[in-house]
Amino acid sequence: MPRDPALPLLLTPGPVSVSRSTKEVMLLDRPSGDVEFSADLRFAREYLVSIVNGGGRYTAVPVPGSATYANEAVIATLVPEGGKLLLHSNGVYGDRLIEICEALGTPYAVLRTEPFTPPTAAQFEAMLRADPVITHIMVVHCETSTGVLNPLEEVAALCQRYAKRLLIDAVASFGAIDLDARSLRFDAAVLSSNKCMQGVPGVGWAVVARDALEGAKGHCRSLTLDLWDQEQHMQRTGGFRFTPPTHVVSAFAQACREHADEGGAPARLARYRRNWRRLVDGMRQMGFATVVPDAHASPIVATFRAPEHPGFSFEALFAGMKRRGFVIFPGRLALANTFRIGCMGAVEEADIAEAMEALAEVMTEMGIRDLGRVEAAGA
Amino acid sequence: MPRDPALPLLLTPGPVSVSRSTKEVMLLDRPSGDVEFSADLRFAREYLVSIVNGGGRYTAVPVPGSATYANEAVIATLVPEGGKLLLHSNGVYGDRLIEICEALGTPYAVLRTEPFTPPTAAQFEAMLRADPVITHIMVVHCETSTGVLNPLEEVAALCQRYAKRLLIDAVASFGAIDLDARSLRFDAAVLSSNKCMQGVPGVGWAVVARDALEGAKGHCRSLTLDLWDQEQHMQRTGGFRFTPPTHVVSAFAQACREHADEGGAPARLARYRRNWRRLVDGMRQMGFATVVPDAHASPIVATFRAPEHPGFSFEALFAGMKRRGFVIFPGRLALANTFRIGCMGAVEEADIAEAMEALAEVMTEMGIRDLGRVEAAGA
Repeated sequence: MPRDPALPLLLTPGPVSVSRSTKEVMLLDRPSGDVEFSADLRFAREYLVSIVNGGGRYTAVPVPGSATYANEAVIATLVPEGGKLLLHSNGVYGDRLIEICEALGTPYAVLRTEPFTPPTAAQFEAMLRADPVITHIMVVHCETSTGVLNPLEEVAALCQRYAKRLLIDAVASFGAIDLDARSLRFDAAVLSSNKCMQGVPGVGWAVVARDALEGAKGHCRSLTLDLWDQEQHMQRTGGFRFTPPTHVVSAFAQACREHADEGGAPARLARYRRNWRRLVDGMRQMGFATVVPDAHASPIVATFRAPEHPGFSFEALFAGMKRRGFVIFPGRLALANTFRIGCMGAVEEADIAEAMEALAEVMTEMGIRDLGRVEAAGA
Repeated sequence: MPRDPALPLLLTPGPVSVSRSTKEVMLLDRPSGDVEFSADLRFAREYLVSIVNGGGRYTAVPVPGSATYANEAVIATLVPEGGKLLLHSNGVYGDRLIEICEALGTPYAVLRTEPFTPPTAAQFEAMLRADPVITHIMVVHCETSTGVLNPLEEVAALCQRYAKRLLIDAVASFGAIDLDARSLRFDAAVLSSNKCMQGVPGVGWAVVARDALEGAKGHCRSLTLDLWDQEQHMQRTGGFRFTPPTHVVSAFAQACREHADEGGAPARLARYRRNWRRLVDGMRQMGFATVVPDAHASPIVATFRAPEHPGFSFEALFAGMKRRGFVIFPGRLALANTFRIGCMGAVEEADIAEAMEALAEVMTEMGIRDLGRVEAAGA
C-alpha cells in the first residue's frame, strides 16, 4: 500500500517522525500548574536521569526552546567567570558551540579536526597541555551533520586525568547511544525532545550533576536560560518558572513512556542500527557511496555523496521521494554535494525498505539505470 | 450535557484553551526545511505584522520558548550598551522585566505603582525628568496577574515628547486589545503564541520596527535570543536558525487563520468582553467581589477576592470546578487571598454561563448559600 504523501515519514536528521500516540497527547489542553502536568514533568525528569543511571547525583532541567538553547544554558550556567572551555568541532554542531561562546563572551579554545572522522585523544591531550587555563571540555557526542561518532570515553578519561569538567552535547545520541554516569563522569549532557527520544521538538534538556549545579548560582547572565534558577524553582514548586510548552512537555512524557516500553536505549539503538544497515546496504546496491567510514558512523543518520551522474539532481530526488511519502534532507554548509537520510524516530526497518523501493523508482524516473557503472565510466 | 472532566476547559490566565482544529495540526510531523513549513512561518509573520498595521515598517521575529524569552530577547537585542530602560511594574509581569534586566545587567529604573490600578502619565513623566539617561521605556500593556490595563497610549505620547524608544510587553493583549503602529510608535511588541492569539504555548514573538532592529547587530550577548541574528537568517533562508518547535509553529499559523476568520482583534475583543461581562456579573450575583475597578479591568482575566466565609476554600472550589470540567487559577504571589478566572482562549459566553452554574453547585457543596449576606455579616 503506498504511503499518503500528506502524512509523510520523516527520514531526516530532525525533526524526526514521532508516533501517533505521542502526538495525540497534544490534543488535550493542560493547565501548567495542576497535578497531571506536574506528574508528567516529574516523570520525564526522573526518566532522563535514569537513562544515564544518574539517580541521586544528577537532575534533569528542561529548557523550553530547543537543544541549542540547552547547550547555551549549560555553557552560560556551568562555565564560571575565569573558566575556559575547550571545544571540539568536526561539523556544524561543533561550530555552533563556538558561536554560542562567541555570543556569550565565554573564553574558549578550539580543536578543529577533519569532518568525516573522529578526533584522537592525543589531539585533545595536546590542547590541554598547551593551555592549562582550560577548565572545561565540551564534546559533540554524535555530529548530526555527518553522523560521525566522537570519542566520548577517551575525552572523559582525559578529563579525569587532567581534572577538567566534561560537558556533552548529546543531542543526537541521548536515548540511543550508551551514556552511563556510573562509568563516565560528566557535569552536563544536553539532549533534544526530538531526535532519539522521539518527542516533538520544542524543549531541550540538560541532565546536570547536582554538585556542578549547586555552585552555579549567579553565573548565567540570562534569566530564561539560567539552569540553576530553573532547578531551584522546580525543587520549590515542582514546575516551570514561565509558561511552559505544555503540549510539547506532556508529549515528551509520553515519548519517555514509549522509550521505556521499547526497552530503553539499547533496544532503540538496535532498531536504529537495523534501519541504518538496511539504508546503507540499499543505497550501496544502487551505487551510492557513504561519506563517513562505517567504523566511525553512528546509526542516527547516513551521509551520501551526490552522484556525478548527469541525470542526478538532489531536488528531483527530494521531490520524487516526497511524492511517495518520504522526506529526506539535503547536506548542509561545508558538506557540499552530499545528502542525508535519517534513521532516527518512529521508523522501522520495513519503512526503510519501502523508502529504498521508492528511491529506486525515483532513480528510474531520472533515467538512471546503473549509477555505479556510469560513475565508474565517468571516473 | 455535562462536560467531560478528562477534556477540561481552561478558564485561566494561560495556558488558555485552544480550538480542536488548531491542536489537530500537531498530528502531522513536518520537516522544518520544506516549503509547507516555510509557508506557515511566513504567513504567521505577515499576519502578526498586519494585526498592528505595520506592513513594510515592522517584522515579526519568532522566539521559541515562551513570551518571557521574547521579552528577554527584546531587551537584550534592542537596548544598546549605554542605554537605560525605564520599567513600570504593578504586578508579577512588570516584576519579571526587572528580573530580566537584573540577569542581563541592563541598566534600569523602576516606576512601581499600586497593583489594582494603572499608573498615571505624570508618574512616568516625573521619572523621565528625574533621569535623563533613560533611553527606553518598557510597559506591560495588560498585567495578567491582575487584569489591569496600563495606559499605553499616554506612555507612547511621552516617548514621542521625550524622544524615548518604546518597548511593549503585549503578551496578554496582542490579538485582542487594539495596538496600531500607524498611530502608536513602538520599537517592539512582545506576544505569546498562547493567550489572545489562541495558539498552543511554546513560541514567543517580537513584532519589531525594522529600523530599530537594523542597528542592533552585536547587542545581544546570547546566540539563541538574538533577534537581529534570527531576522537576518530568516531574510536569507526563510527559516529558523535552530530546529524550531514545528508542531507549535504550524499550530500557530492555524491559530492566526482562525483569528482572521473570527474577524481579527476587534471581534476577539468583543467576544472576550462578552465572556468577562458574563463572568463578572455571574460572580457578583453569587456575592463575589472583583479586585480591580471595572474601569481599569481588561476582559482577559478577572481577579476575585477569596470570600471570608468560613465554609469557603479555594482548593475545594478548584477541585469542584475541575470535576465539572473547568480549570480555574489561584492568585499569585503578592496577591494573597485572590483567585483568577480567565476569559481568553477558545471560550464562548455560553461556556462561561455553564461555568457559573458549575460554580454555584460547588458553592452549594461547600455549604455556602449566600456569600453576600454572610460576608456582610462578618464585615
